[in-house]
Amino acid sequence: MQPSKRMKEKRLASFRGERESLIYLDNAATTFPKPPSVYEAVLRCMKEYGGNPGRSGHRLSMKAAEAVYDCRAELASLFGSRHPTNVVFTTNATASLNTAIQSLLGTLGERRHILLSDIEHNSVLRPIVSSGCPYSVYRVGTTEEETLRNVKKALRADTGMIVCNHLSNVCGLTNPAEAIGRLCRERDIRFVLDVSQSAGSHRLHIGKIGADCLCGPGHKGLYGPQGCGFLLFADAYAYEETASRLSTVFAGGNGVASKETSMPAFLPERLEAGTLPTPAIAGLCEGIRFVKGIGEDEIGRRTSALRERLKGNLSALGGIRVYGGDTPPCGSLLFDASSDPEQTAAALDHEGFALRSGFHCAPSVLERLGCGEFGALRASFSYFNTAREIDLLTEAIETIIKKGTV
Amino acid sequence: MQPSKRMKEKRLASFRGERESLIYLDNAATTFPKPPSVYEAVLRCMKEYGGNPGRSGHRLSMKAAEAVYDCRAELASLFGSRHPTNVVFTTNATASLNTAIQSLLGTLGERRHILLSDIEHNSVLRPIVSSGCPYSVYRVGTTEEETLRNVKKALRADTGMIVCNHLSNVCGLTNPAEAIGRLCRERDIRFVLDVSQSAGSHRLHIGKIGADCLCGPGHKGLYGPQGCGFLLFADAYAYEETASRLSTVFAGGNGVASKETSMPAFLPERLEAGTLPTPAIAGLCEGIRFVKGIGEDEIGRRTSALRERLKGNLSALGGIRVYGGDTPPCGSLLFDASSDPEQTAAALDHEGFALRSGFHCAPSVLERLGCGEFGALRASFSYFNTAREIDLLTEAIETIIKKGTV
Repeated sequence: MQPSKRMKEKRLASFRGERESLIYLDNAATTFPKPPSVYEAVLRCMKEYGGNPGRSGHRLSMKAAEAVYDCRAELASLFGSRHPTNVVFTTNATASLNTAIQSLLGTLGERRHILLSDIEHNSVLRPIVSSGCPYSVYRVGTTEEETLRNVKKALRADTGMIVCNHLSNVCGLTNPAEAIGRLCRERDIRFVLDVSQSAGSHRLHIGKIGADCLCGPGHKGLYGPQGCGFLLFADAYAYEETASRLSTVFAGGNGVASKETSMPAFLPERLEAGTLPTPAIAGLCEGIRFVKGIGEDEIGRRTSALRERLKGNLSALGGIRVYGGDTPPCGSLLFDASSDPEQTAAALDHEGFALRSGFHCAPSVLERLGCGEFGALRASFSYFNTAREIDLLTEAIETIIKKGTV
Repeated sequence: MQPSKRMKEKRLASFRGERESLIYLDNAATTFPKPPSVYEAVLRCMKEYGGNPGRSGHRLSMKAAEAVYDCRAELASLFGSRHPTNVVFTTNATASLNTAIQSLLGTLGERRHILLSDIEHNSVLRPIVSSGCPYSVYRVGTTEEETLRNVKKALRADTGMIVCNHLSNVCGLTNPAEAIGRLCRERDIRFVLDVSQSAGSHRLHIGKIGADCLCGPGHKGLYGPQGCGFLLFADAYAYEETASRLSTVFAGGNGVASKETSMPAFLPERLEAGTLPTPAIAGLCEGIRFVKGIGEDEIGRRTSALRERLKGNLSALGGIRVYGGDTPPCGSLLFDASSDPEQTAAALDHEGFALRSGFHCAPSVLERLGCGEFGALRASFSYFNTAREIDLLTEAIETIIKKGTV
């Protein structure tokens, strides 16, 4: 046993070494690392209260259900809602957006035209395309007024829903959520806001925004583990009269009204079927507490400052194309040091930097920003990144250019 | 800091005490505990390679993608498939069943009538009801021949799909999977088999069964964490020609063909949108290895023996109603010690035993077994339960009856 154990330790040590030397700048895909409290919560959930939440009356099931409720409560309060049961858990933001769109489609009647913006992720575009509903795309402007004008121009008499992100996943282009929300309220249009890139770094209040629901992942700016996404519905959906109008999406058991052949009329059970991802939810709860402890403003300031620093560094370096650099502050920067961003990413990985290349599941915004046929490189930041890491990245970029690697 | 640390330790110790004294017999809802290797894998995934699998080319994303692939390979080989990419991951078995039914509906053409059995969980019944397709229910017999006769009787000219579980979640009633599969192949009927209760305790071979797909959870008999379910499609779906006929269910990004507005034509990407639950998948991989290490036969023998022991004990005790006790060997026993199973479950929880009461999301089989209006109590076993625990449960039941608690 001795040699195998030693080999294992050696392998582990070398992997640890690799990790320590790696600077992770792909936080818009998933934040890494997570706060230690998140890891601990996941482990504690699995080891100490691994019952199935909401299924049984015994203490392990009850404790799991409490943990799930705690996370609903943290999430609701983060977004200014007093209704923890308006939080619906899914596996990721994409599942949340599909669920939001499909369930709200049931409330539209004849007004089935959908509006989306030109800076959307495929997790918004593709479910709309696959819904078969007519849709139009409006252009996000450089000012709130311009965007709002574009939205109004794109509206049709049969527009029943607007779905858009709050913040692009590759630059600072932003949808003016509150202004769009007001418009939606005035015209009785359903409004789904994708907060995948803004939750955790922007203060968000569902009531002030006027959205029917916010959708997002647990594993990005809220620092939870992969495996959990959420929807938060507006206050009105706390009442069965409103919630029961939502089409069900996935149907199945949830320990509630088992004798019925249809899903319950109330949230969250109407849209939650089957066993919840309890460990990920327990981890997310701690992630949200971490965000609340620091504050969204502080996190947003920090990640935006890192982006500005990288932008400045790259400009001083010269010869680097930055895309969307003039867009508002945000936590990611799109650029390229060559015509082949994949090769640049590979070279940077070799130097110990994790960045993503390609289209970032958002081809229309990359096209708009003037990126080439292979997309571009994205550096995206979390609260755990430092100015020194940005400077080291800059040096590495300089090195690979000088070496002629790219 | 001293007092708070001491208090924390005290709290932890008391919780450990509670857990150690608790005997968990709700394994058909979710197995608990998991093998230590599962906890370790989840933690290692989160801490050491927390990238987004399949999104980026850097090492943390690649390592995450490898871990996901490893689990696909373990799962495929467990069920006799040579196609790891025919494994689709979801959040739970219910999502898997909804995905299977919705995606296969796209292949049925005019033959939209669906058959299901009378021992189904709501995760089969409800998605079929909500699909709006016509459906019929056949009765599972006490022999394979009887069941097959009932299936044939229920078949219509427009029957396009049969969806059933392999094993009931409350007793030993079983659908003869291979016989139904043969019938489906002969008549070109799609066949979805829910292996939620049999995976891990029964040897299953997708090719021999002849199913289009197997659906199940990661967190039951495969000893993975909550947060991951799977579909495994038959060999034919490894080819684009067949896979592309599957309707997409949730649409979104998956790092593949980002410029397209529709989902890829091949598996698993056609049915996987958004970030996968990587930590749960990494844990499931170790759970499957645990099962393979012991063997399904041995696990099945062990859990069935525990059920037989409890059945014998309860019969010796007298005055206890056992439901479905004459059904084939399996890992759960349905019974009641009073007319109020919820009260019995609460009393047993007080004594330190975790059992589930109610309808177990499968009201039709409980009705068939003659359970009352409040359902019944279920004890369900994992590999980690012991004969001594069954005897202690029996003593506890005797105690609460003597005390008059129930």
